[in-house]
Amino acid sequence: MDFSIREANLDDCKDIARMIMELAEYVKLAEHVKVTQKDLEQDGFSNNPFFHGIIAEVPEQHKTKEGHTKIGYALYFYAYSSWSGRAIYMEDLYVMPEFRGKGVGKALISKVAQLGLAAGCHQLNFTVLDWNKPSMDFYLSQGCFNITATMGYHCMRCEGEALKHLAQL
Amino acid sequence: MDFSIREANLDDCKDIARMIMELAEYVKLAEHVKVTQKDLEQDGFSNNPFFHGIIAEVPEQHKTKEGHTKIGYALYFYAYSSWSGRAIYMEDLYVMPEFRGKGVGKALISKVAQLGLAAGCHQLNFTVLDWNKPSMDFYLSQGCFNITATMGYHCMRCEGEALKHLAQL
Repeated sequence: MDFSIREANLDDCKDIARMIMELAEYVKLAEHVKVTQKDLEQDGFSNNPFFHGIIAEVPEQHKTKEGHTKIGYALYFYAYSSWSGRAIYMEDLYVMPEFRGKGVGKALISKVAQLGLAAGCHQLNFTVLDWNKPSMDFYLSQGCFNITATMGYHCMRCEGEALKHLAQL
Repeated sequence: MDFSIREANLDDCKDIARMIMELAEYVKLAEHVKVTQKDLEQDGFSNNPFFHGIIAEVPEQHKTKEGHTKIGYALYFYAYSSWSGRAIYMEDLYVMPEFRGKGVGKALISKVAQLGLAAGCHQLNFTVLDWNKPSMDFYLSQGCFNITATMGYHCMRCEGEALKHLAQL
């Protein structure tokens, strides 16, 4: 299938917001999505962006029945490991269901890896939900490994009132 | 105990490198540390830093028998959640053993939370090794939660030859 991979720009935020919601619905956690198109525009495309994006696009003749040509995306930002140094973190990787199995996901993660290596990064990090076996199998098949399973890393989070409280200790 | 918390600067990299190694020894993974003082200087204190640091310091009269006054640190960087928006990621939090239980760790994580809130972040994220019960208990007592245990998030990583291969797909 004919598709292209390119860096995201401001005009992609509407489609990124749509696909963020589709991904959240896929992982059954849509009620957690608070980010809007406007947030993405402000946070990703201002002077000090909090993230960067990559878009997978198909030609007009392959557009979905709803008229979408932007059919996949990845979000990433630069990170740091105090052991290994520069790292790149992939926040999301998503391909619309009807375009899966055609190499789009591979092309997106490959682009993230390329950008990371070009910036001197030694690691690509991300998270996967443990019940999401198709995604987990895909990543393991690409040479990624599960450092929760192998080394015991657990993801921790503080937010909302607890975060405000923590700031006032 | 008298101590102060401040943003790290270039001159702190020697002590940060020392404490990164101490922390890695504490978690029994010292052989994984590749980062040097020079890496920290380049990656944290250039035009587009990959991380920021916070230092905990004691007055001269409380220095260690080796002469150290910098007795704890945190490393952090800004991150993004496609559901919650701006986030801050705490890569490390460390207090030298003889200074634990005196509020230094709380002061360091509190500073990270303050900086995150000031930058408009809604989440503080980090990882903990599951066997490190004292640290896990500390974080849980501060209102953090374990999203690996509660939601099934697993940490994934690609590095070395596998990362290079991924970039060439």
